[in-house]
Parts: sequence; C-alpha cells; structure tokens
Amino acid sequence: MSSSDIFIGEIIGTAVLILLGGGVVAAVVLKRSKAQNAGWVAITFGWGFAVMTAVYMTGTLSGAHLNPAVTVGIAIKDGDWSNTPVYFAGQMVGAMLGAALVWLAYYGQFQAHLRDPEIADKPADAGPGPVLGVFSTGPEIRNVWQNLTTEAIGTLVLVLAVLTQGLNDSGKGLGPLGGLIVAFVVVSIGLSLGGPTGYAINPARDLGPRIVHALLPLPNKGGSDWSYAWIPIAGPLIGAAAAAGIYNIAFA
Amino acid sequence: MSSSDIFIGEIIGTAVLILLGGGVVAAVVLKRSKAQNAGWVAITFGWGFAVMTAVYMTGTLSGAHLNPAVTVGIAIKDGDWSNTPVYFAGQMVGAMLGAALVWLAYYGQFQAHLRDPEIADKPADAGPGPVLGVFSTGPEIRNVWQNLTTEAIGTLVLVLAVLTQGLNDSGKGLGPLGGLIVAFVVVSIGLSLGGPTGYAINPARDLGPRIVHALLPLPNKGGSDWSYAWIPIAGPLIGAAAAAGIYNIAFA
Amino acid sequence: MSSSDIFIGEIIGTAVLILLGGGVVAAVVLKRSKAQNAGWVAITFGWGFAVMTAVYMTGTLSGAHLNPAVTVGIAIKDGDWSNTPVYFAGQMVGAMLGAALVWLAYYGQFQAHLRDPEIADKPADAGPGPVLGVFSTGPEIRNVWQNLTTEAIGTLVLVLAVLTQGLNDSGKGLGPLGGLIVAFVVVSIGLSLGGPTGYAINPARDLGPRIVHALLPLPNKGGSDWSYAWIPIAGPLIGAAAAAGIYNIAFA
Amino acid sequence: MSSSDIFIGEIIGTAVLILLGGGVVAAVVLKRSKAQNAGWVAITFGWGFAVMTAVYMTGTLSGAHLNPAVTVGIAIKDGDWSNTPVYFAGQMVGAMLGAALVWLAYYGQFQAHLRDPEIADKPADAGPGPVLGVFSTGPEIRNVWQNLTTEAIGTLVLVLAVLTQGLNDSGKGLGPLGGLIVAFVVVSIGLSLGGPTGYAINPARDLGPRIVHALLPLPNKGGSDWSYAWIPIAGPLIGAAAAAGIYNIAFA
Repeated sequence: MSSSDIFIGEIIGTAVLILLGGGVVAAVVLKRSKAQNAGWVAITFGWGFAVMTAVYMTGTLSGAHLNPAVTVGIAIKDGDWSNTPVYFAGQMVGAMLGAALVWLAYYGQFQAHLRDPEIADKPADAGPGPVLGVFSTGPEIRNVWQNLTTEAIGTLVLVLAVLTQGLNDSGKGLGPLGGLIVAFVVVSIGLSLGGPTGYAINPARDLGPRIVHALLPLPNKGGSDWSYAWIPIAGPLIGAAAAAGIYNIAFA
Repeated sequence: MSSSDIFIGEIIGTAVLILLGGGVVAAVVLKRSKAQNAGWVAITFGWGFAVMTAVYMTGTLSGAHLNPAVTVGIAIKDGDWSNTPVYFAGQMVGAMLGAALVWLAYYGQFQAHLRDPEIADKPADAGPGPVLGVFSTGPEIRNVWQNLTTEAIGTLVLVLAVLTQGLNDSGKGLGPLGGLIVAFVVVSIGLSLGGPTGYAINPARDLGPRIVHALLPLPNKGGSDWSYAWIPIAGPLIGAAAAAGIYNIAFA
Repeated sequence: MSSSDIFIGEIIGTAVLILLGGGVVAAVVLKRSKAQNAGWVAITFGWGFAVMTAVYMTGTLSGAHLNPAVTVGIAIKDGDWSNTPVYFAGQMVGAMLGAALVWLAYYGQFQAHLRDPEIADKPADAGPGPVLGVFSTGPEIRNVWQNLTTEAIGTLVLVLAVLTQGLNDSGKGLGPLGGLIVAFVVVSIGLSLGGPTGYAINPARDLGPRIVHALLPLPNKGGSDWSYAWIPIAGPLIGAAAAAGIYNIAFA
Repeated sequence: MSSSDIFIGEIIGTAVLILLGGGVVAAVVLKRSKAQNAGWVAITFGWGFAVMTAVYMTGTLSGAHLNPAVTVGIAIKDGDWSNTPVYFAGQMVGAMLGAALVWLAYYGQFQAHLRDPEIADKPADAGPGPVLGVFSTGPEIRNVWQNLTTEAIGTLVLVLAVLTQGLNDSGKGLGPLGGLIVAFVVVSIGLSLGGPTGYAINPARDLGPRIVHALLPLPNKGGSDWSYAWIPIAGPLIGAAAAAGIYNIAFA
C-alpha cells in the first residue's frame, strides 16, 4: 500500500466511521429526530455497523485501521512503525471531517436542541451533556483510574480480536467475513464495556470530534470537557500495547 | 443480462423491498398491529432485511439495483447508460406494486387507524402523518437545504459502499456475503442518518409509494405532501453522483 | 436422502424450531419470566434464530424444510412429490414435540400466569390470549379474507426466497451462508408482515402446537380457537403455490 | 493442539467470554451505567457476541470450547477424554479471571449500586439480586426439577448445534462462518429459553464467577446463593450428554 492510498483510505474510512457513529448518537439524543430515545441497542449497533461500512469501503486502500490504537497494536506486532504517522494523520483528518458531516446532517436538530430553553438553562455542566456526547465520550462516574482501566480493557479486547483474526480457519484468516466480525466485536464491546465511559476505544474517534465541537458555532454548547480528553487517548493506547503483548506471548 | 430479465428482476425485487420496507412501518405505526410501537430499531432492521431479501432474490436476474440512485452511481462509474431506462421503469413499477401489497396485507389496520376519531380529527396536517409515512418519507424539520443535504449524505454512503464492495478481499469481491453487508449498511444509514428525514436514499422508494398513496381509497388520508416529493428524488441523485465522483478519484 | 433421514431430520429440526420459536413467545408474554415485555424485536429475532439453529442442525439429514409450505413449494418447482408425505409427517411430529418441550421449560411460568386471578378472570375471550399465543397464531382483526391474504403474502416471500437462493453467486448458491440468510428473511417477514396475524407462514408451526395446547393440562387455558385454525394452513399453502408459480415463470 | 495451547486458549477465551458476558449484565442492571435498563435484547446479544469474540480469538489455540458442557459433549462423541481435565482447568481459571475484570471495569458502578441506601436495605434477599446476577444465574421460580430441566434443554440445543456444525455443507463444515452461527445460537437460546433461569448453559460460566462474587470485597453484597449453585452445573452436563446421545443415534 502506498502512503497516499493509506492517507486517503484512512481519511475516507474514519470520516465514514465518525459520520455514522456520531450520527447514531445525534439520532438518539437530539430533539426533533425520528430516532430520539431509540436506546442503547440502537447506539451500539449503530457504531458497530459504522465500523463495518467503513472497513468494507476502505479495506483495500489502507487496510482500514481507522483507529490509532489498532495502528499501534499492529505496529508492535509487526515491529514496523514506518507508516504509523501517515495512519495517524489520516485518522485525525477523517475523524474531524466525519464530525463536521454529522453537524451538517443534523443541523436543524442541533439548533432545535440547543436553543430549547430547558436545555439552554442547563448547559451540560454535570458531565459532557448530550450534544458533546454526539462528538466525544465522557464518563458516568469521573474517576481517572477506573476510566483509564475501562478504556484500556475495552481496547484490549478490540485489538486482540483484530490481531488474532488472521489466525482462524487453519491460518487462512476470515477473508471477506472479517469486516462483519469486527463490527460485531465492536457491538459487543459497546454492549458489555460501554456503560462506564461510553467506549471511545479509539483516540482519533474522541479527539478529532472534540476539536470540531470546540470549533463549531453551536449555540449554548457549553465546554468541550478538555480535562477528560487525555483519558480516551491514553487508555486505548495502553490497551493496544497490552493486546500486542498478549498476542506476542500467547499466539505468535 | 437481457433487458427483460432486468425489467422483471427490478419489478420483483423493488416490489419485495417496498412490501417489506413499507410493511415494517405499517407494523410499527398502525393501530391494531401486534408490532405497534416496536420502535426505531425494528424499523431500521426491517428496511435492512427488506433490502437483503430482495437482493438475494433478484441478484441473478437484474443485479438487484432496486434504487435509481444505485443505477445512476453504477452508470457513472461504468460510463454506460444503455440499460438505465429499463432499470428506472422496473423500479417504479415494482415500488408501486409493493406499496399496493402493503395496503392489502394491512387492510384492516389502515381502516382501524384512519377511522379512529382521534386520528380523523387531526389528519396529518403537522407533517405527513403516520399513514403517509407507511408510503413515503417526510422531514421532522422542514428545511430544503438541510433535507437535501441529509438525503445526499446518506445516499453517498450507500452508493460508495455498493461501488467499493467489489474491491475488497484482494479484488475478489464479497461474493455471496455481499447482500448481507449491503443490508447492514442500510441498517447503519437508517440508525445514523435517518433521524432528520426518514432516509429515503432511493427516489423510487419514495415516489412510487407516494403515487399509490394518492390513488388508494383510504378514508381521511390527508394529502400526499407533494411539495416535499422532489427532495427524496434530488437528494439521492446528488449523493449518488458524489459517490461515483469520489470512487473515480480515490478508488479506481 | 433416505426416507428415514428425512423423517428424523424433520422431527428434530421442527422440534428445535418450535421449542425456540414458541419459547421466545413464552419468554416475552408469561409472568415470572426474565424476558417479560422484551418486545417485538425479541420475538422476531427469536423466531429467526430458531429457524437458523434448526436449519444448520438438520440440513444434511433432511434438507431442513421444517415447513409444509416450503415442502410444497419445492415439490411444485421440482415436479416431484414422492417424499412429501414423509416431510409432512416429520414436521407435524416435530412441531408437537417442540410445543411440549416449551411447556416443560416454562412449566412454572405457565402455572404462575394461568393461576393469576387477573388472568383467570379473563380467559382469553377477546382473541386467543397470550398463552394460546405461545402455541399458535391469531389475528388482531378477525377477517377471513385479509388474514388469508396476509399469510399468503408472507409465505410467498419466504418460499420465493428459498427457491431463489440457489441461483445467486453465479449459480453456485449461498453455500453455508444460506441458513443465516433464511433466518434474516424470517426476521424480515416477522418485522414487516407479522403485525396483522402473527405470521404463521407454516402450517405445521401452527397446527401442531394448537393440538398440544388442546391436550395439555393447563389450568384456565381457555379454548384453542379452532375456528381460526384453517387459515394458517390454507394461507401459507396458497402463498407457496404462488411463489412456485412466480419462480417457474420468472426465474427458471 | 498441545496441552499448554489448550490451557492458555481456554483461559483467554473464557476470560473474554465472561468479561463481555458478565459485562453486559453489569451494563444493564447497575446504577450509573449508560446502558442501564437497555433490556433483554441487549443482554442476549451481548452474551452471543461475547461467545463470538472469544471463539474467533482462541479457536486456533484450543478449539474454543469455553464451556465444560461443550467439552463433555465432544468427549462423548469422540470417545476421547484425554484433554478434558486441561479444558476444565482452563475454563475455570478463565471464568474467574473474566469475572474479576468485570469488577475492575465497573468498579464505580458496583460501589454506587451497593452503597445506594435503597439497595442496601434490601440486599438481594428475594433471589440472587442484580449484583449476584452480574456474576451468576438464578431462577425466577425456584423449583429444582424445572430449573434442571430448563438448563438441560437449553444446553442440549447448544451442544447439538456445536456437534452438528461439522456435518453441514457437504461435510466441509461451516468454516470461518462457524463462530458467527454459534453466537446466534446462543442469542437464540437466551431469547427463547433464558426466561426461567437466566440460561447458564455452561457450568464454568456460573461457578467461576460465583466464587469470585464470594471472594470480592463488595459492600452489602448479600449471599452467593450456594444452594442453587449445583443446578447450573448438573443441568448443562445432563443436556450435553443427551445431545451427544442424540448425535450418536441420529447423525453419526
């Protein structure tokens, strides 16, 4: 894969991932959406199918990492960091682009939600609030060590699943089924480990949209909760390193 | 594929798509249905599996476009418009046939719903209303530019996913898995981008049933909201053209 | 396939189908079940995965028809009725066995539900009631022509999907994916066409358990609604014949 | 497969199974979780995808039994018990490890839930209570014979599905699709047969986490319901033996 294919593939793939992933949160939490209150099952399947759509779309261009934690896990496994900066750059650009597309697609819903007097009087001061939640994650209980641990455990499962897929079926890998299985692994992590922090499990998925939240001209949007922003970066990277370590010890 | 196979395949496939897709909306919104209030997850999976069922049924006859936006995207990609009119004709006939079958299957439920005094006194004057919603889409917030944008973005994701599927798995394509993946892409678009407009993402899916709604002898049915009818045609065609352009630049 | 393999395969497969299919209705409607009120999505996926489990389990023994309507559709398509009586016999025995297993698995829940004074005072006199609904289907609006039509349309989709699966993927069929696709077709029919009658779409699925309902020593169980029993037999057979006709005209 | 690969594979696989399976129960029942009250569909898909994730991760190491009942069923079928103790040991270690990881991931939620005065005043004295339910199963109606029967029937379906998968597709088995199909079989058993007892269908899944529940320093946790603990061991083993018997008679 050429560097330009990787860069373009990660931009398109991560943009689609965040468009569909942030989109399902917007659909479920914003006022005047047909999907309002569709619930946690909708959110977790929405994020899983977002991964699936992006993976099948860009797998041949860039390998569809779409996540710096996946890139780090693969780099540790392979001992090859040469393309890592290109992956990171594409992922951050794509995540910001995807978050901006969510804003376009739900423009009226954001306006209706944030200008609502009931919302406006309580601008997300008890946690990130639903509008920031369309962009970035936030914990239900703010506790650095638990939040880091939960993000690390969730990402460990994701990255170990990605690293081991090639091993199945007598070494032949999952072939075209792989994108679907990864999607359901992401649904699984969301259903099972998403309760405490909202499962970033992907530094670009959280940081890129958080920057866009800070930049967008949304009325009454409140702060972007920057004090929490390092946890969905550090936790997933710790989890990815742990997954690569387990892989090299137990599976390689 | 012969023109007659394409025509027959698109009629059968689009009829099944609209029978099952309109059917799930009827099931969820009409009174005296066992599925009433089953919610947004039911609607989005219902539409996704409707696509899946129709694709596997008619893939060998017509390629199962079932959607003028898909036909346009493929025609731009291939530079070949020779069969486009046959596809469009089959899709429109099939969509109207499917909508009529929904009416047959839910005949009593339509009667119960529309003759209900509470419904009859408020005949869908604040938007298309649930009965028109069985046939065609309508926005939660009526804003031409946002509605067009949302439909274009959703269709862009769908058509780009269709165009790129053949690229995956080392160029061998998804094979028999393709129909399932497209189904979950449609579920994804519904969950994530369906909130503002109800995701037509298919001109025939919206126009054909709207015509049937206008023709059927439903009591107290209200208007067919013709002023909105051009948006679920134009938005998807814009999105399909954008998808084909991205494909030709980044993937070809 | 030998007659004895067909007979045993259809008994085991249809028993598993009804155990899991009737089971999910018991889980959702009976008191003192952890799944009570889990809703229509649970019921439709439960029936779909019931089909999937039974198909993968018995496909090599009998071909896993598990449904007299599927058997009739295939017999018309192939012009071969030689094994039809063996299929029917296995399906009826299996359906009755499966219904009895549901009763064993939910024994306490049936007792708790039916001895509840609130239930006992209103023994299913406004339709089949929830306990009969664990065994057999019943309409929301009792109208012979609509009920027959809805069952025929739903079965038409099912049987046409089964008959056309072998055509996909360049004539090679769906291979091991087939059981999963059929499962989601059944989910689709449930979500989209199940609202009016509860989608029997299978004469054995309805008649076998109805007989068991009539025989079991359930307290306060009410009648078995025999006046409706012919509709989920006739409707599916009409739909299967229509599907075979469409197949022979458009696909063969 | 070497004994050490089996041991390590079953530890990792069963740990992931219980982390994700116990995790989804924690997510749905504990206070201060974003998924609270997400419902039975979330729980059943969460357990199914937990199985899927663990199977694809460890299939090449140990064959991914992850369940003593599966190990017993396969041992009876093959007449080979040589590796059974290694499987059992890995499964128990993994199940306990997974339960401890759930506690880490939901540390704050357990604290918030158990210190809540409303919860603390009623420490799970009417059944195992929600916190024990994160670890182990318990019946809605306590009846030894029904509870044993329900667990045996559910496990019979699971083990027969596992044993027969290799037969499908002209003897070639399901290949890489197998892990997904087993996942949906587990969802099916959960939806359809989980209502009465919470479907352990796996002795290690129940006993390992129950031991961890007894050991963990959870405030106000109540008892670990040891009087019930033998049923989710005996029931699944009876079901596995029955499945192997049916397999040897009808399928071999």
